[in-house]
Amino acid sequence: MRATVMYGAGDVRIENVPDAIIEDTTDALVRVTQACICGSDLWPYKDLQPGEPARVMGHEAIGIVEAVGADVRTVKAGDLVVMPFAFSDGTCDYCQHGLQTACSHGGFFGNPEVPGAQAEAVRVPLADGTLYPLPVGVDDTLMPSLLTLSDVLGTGHHAAMTARVRPGTTVAVIGDGAVGLCGVIAAKRLRAEQIILLGRHHDRIALARDFGATDVVSERGDEAVERVKELSGGDGVHSVLECVGTEQSILTAVEIARPGAAIGRVGVPHYNAIPQAQPTFYKNLTVGGGPAPARAYLDELLPDILDGTIEPGRVFDRTVDLDGVPDGYRAMNDREAIKVLVKP
Amino acid sequence: MRATVMYGAGDVRIENVPDAIIEDTTDALVRVTQACICGSDLWPYKDLQPGEPARVMGHEAIGIVEAVGADVRTVKAGDLVVMPFAFSDGTCDYCQHGLQTACSHGGFFGNPEVPGAQAEAVRVPLADGTLYPLPVGVDDTLMPSLLTLSDVLGTGHHAAMTARVRPGTTVAVIGDGAVGLCGVIAAKRLRAEQIILLGRHHDRIALARDFGATDVVSERGDEAVERVKELSGGDGVHSVLECVGTEQSILTAVEIARPGAAIGRVGVPHYNAIPQAQPTFYKNLTVGGGPAPARAYLDELLPDILDGTIEPGRVFDRTVDLDGVPDGYRAMNDREAIKVLVKP
Repeated sequence: MRATVMYGAGDVRIENVPDAIIEDTTDALVRVTQACICGSDLWPYKDLQPGEPARVMGHEAIGIVEAVGADVRTVKAGDLVVMPFAFSDGTCDYCQHGLQTACSHGGFFGNPEVPGAQAEAVRVPLADGTLYPLPVGVDDTLMPSLLTLSDVLGTGHHAAMTARVRPGTTVAVIGDGAVGLCGVIAAKRLRAEQIILLGRHHDRIALARDFGATDVVSERGDEAVERVKELSGGDGVHSVLECVGTEQSILTAVEIARPGAAIGRVGVPHYNAIPQAQPTFYKNLTVGGGPAPARAYLDELLPDILDGTIEPGRVFDRTVDLDGVPDGYRAMNDREAIKVLVKP
Repeated sequence: MRATVMYGAGDVRIENVPDAIIEDTTDALVRVTQACICGSDLWPYKDLQPGEPARVMGHEAIGIVEAVGADVRTVKAGDLVVMPFAFSDGTCDYCQHGLQTACSHGGFFGNPEVPGAQAEAVRVPLADGTLYPLPVGVDDTLMPSLLTLSDVLGTGHHAAMTARVRPGTTVAVIGDGAVGLCGVIAAKRLRAEQIILLGRHHDRIALARDFGATDVVSERGDEAVERVKELSGGDGVHSVLECVGTEQSILTAVEIARPGAAIGRVGVPHYNAIPQAQPTFYKNLTVGGGPAPARAYLDELLPDILDGTIEPGRVFDRTVDLDGVPDGYRAMNDREAIKVLVKP
């Protein structure tokens, strides 16, 4: 079958790889109808070193179940399913408590051990705990929005949940990528009163405003901090959604948080320590977040997509087939595209 | 009046200072009946530099109101009151939300600007928002326990609350000082199933066991981490109460936390950054805490002292008069005493 293989920084190729097959009795084999390129895929695209193992990329997908192992009970051949970016057994203590990304037997797609979904098909371990059947047809016009349930919408929602967004509060979203934009959707859904987007790209800002951002701050560093404080009444915001993952972005997060605020980190951290241990203490800040248990949030988020309340699929501004994937990486990396949908 | 003045590291003197008086219409003048020495007082006792301003020490007290300013409504002369370590107006947005230690007009006792309570009397700003009348007589035998409401019990409770201690969960308390011991009390009160104390002092460990600690780990560093994991089922604990504030203790806190756990920091941080930004992320840890809003917790904690459910006053193992305060500092610093009660 054909799949997207990353060999090193900037080196993404479409190649023939061994067909995905059922290996374990708990597997499902899923024919991918929609996949996409994630902001987090851009990290190895920037810095995967020669000599590191190549990987079949992709951790977000919708597809049709083609076959299941003997022990799979909750999905069957023919089902249209969404595949969250982590697989999970659904039964361990972590899964039972809604933290599927810490599943005792789980893991992530799209790394050297578990081939990913930017491919014609994907093997899904622990299918019962992982896959979620969708109540729509394969050609439904909501498909782009439904695809965001596999990662970015759940991740934006996780940022908002761990940042404790509540009705009537002030929220800052750091980052105008697809996750940040979904963070705006999530904050709006949770009825934040003020949603300040920190971003600099005109097309993304426009979309953020459509999604519910009330203010935009395009300054950086100290100027951004001052501007957010001005906009939010002086002390900073109640909730910060950190959707970037750089040293600068986490520092800004800490500085724009008012006393008692919470920061939800969902940008994969490219920093070694959370800065400002004393100011965060004296301000009684809470810093939370991590890989989103997208699987846990499906029941809550799906209805709002189905009834049109939210339209996260608008983060996709380009669609490619498999052959177009390498240029899709380039376009996202060059900030030409917000997020690229892949139809294998 | 006589008061405790710290001039530099190791240099604590009892001196005559200007009498505390009513300065603002919202002040109360409180005759101190009980004060104490705090673990956090030991930080300047270790490192206050010559040339830094001297300070009248003490931020924990019970006393009798002697006079009030014209605008004070909720306390009156003759009332026996507990004085939390932070003063607060009780009306600002932070106070209304139970974060009195971030009060818009508040501050802390025992620094160069606001003289403290290891003295015959103390001026209490914002008396209405700060002081809490006690429903007992001045000679009540519960007085040591009631005195802990001013700081250490509220601080241990804050650690437990920000570490999200829940019924049935596993908890580790780092530090066997008075705050750590009160953390054990708080975790027990919140019905944790397992409470692991990390400490090394036999007398404190014995008290911790009386308070509800189920296990004790006296190893340090990696060995402590391994031991806590062994005791708690392999992955670490649900909640960590960080009651020390060193680079090593926060590192241990992060390492013994299981995925999805929360860390409540109440040890004044003597480190610049919260370590392990990536492991804390991948484990979806929450790091919270800070100066405890002791005032906010009084309504909840007081009844359990009055009915004898908890006995936090047992953390006091030495009582001195004002003249004994300098030696009290020495004894606490040398770990000869857990916590020293002062009767001016």
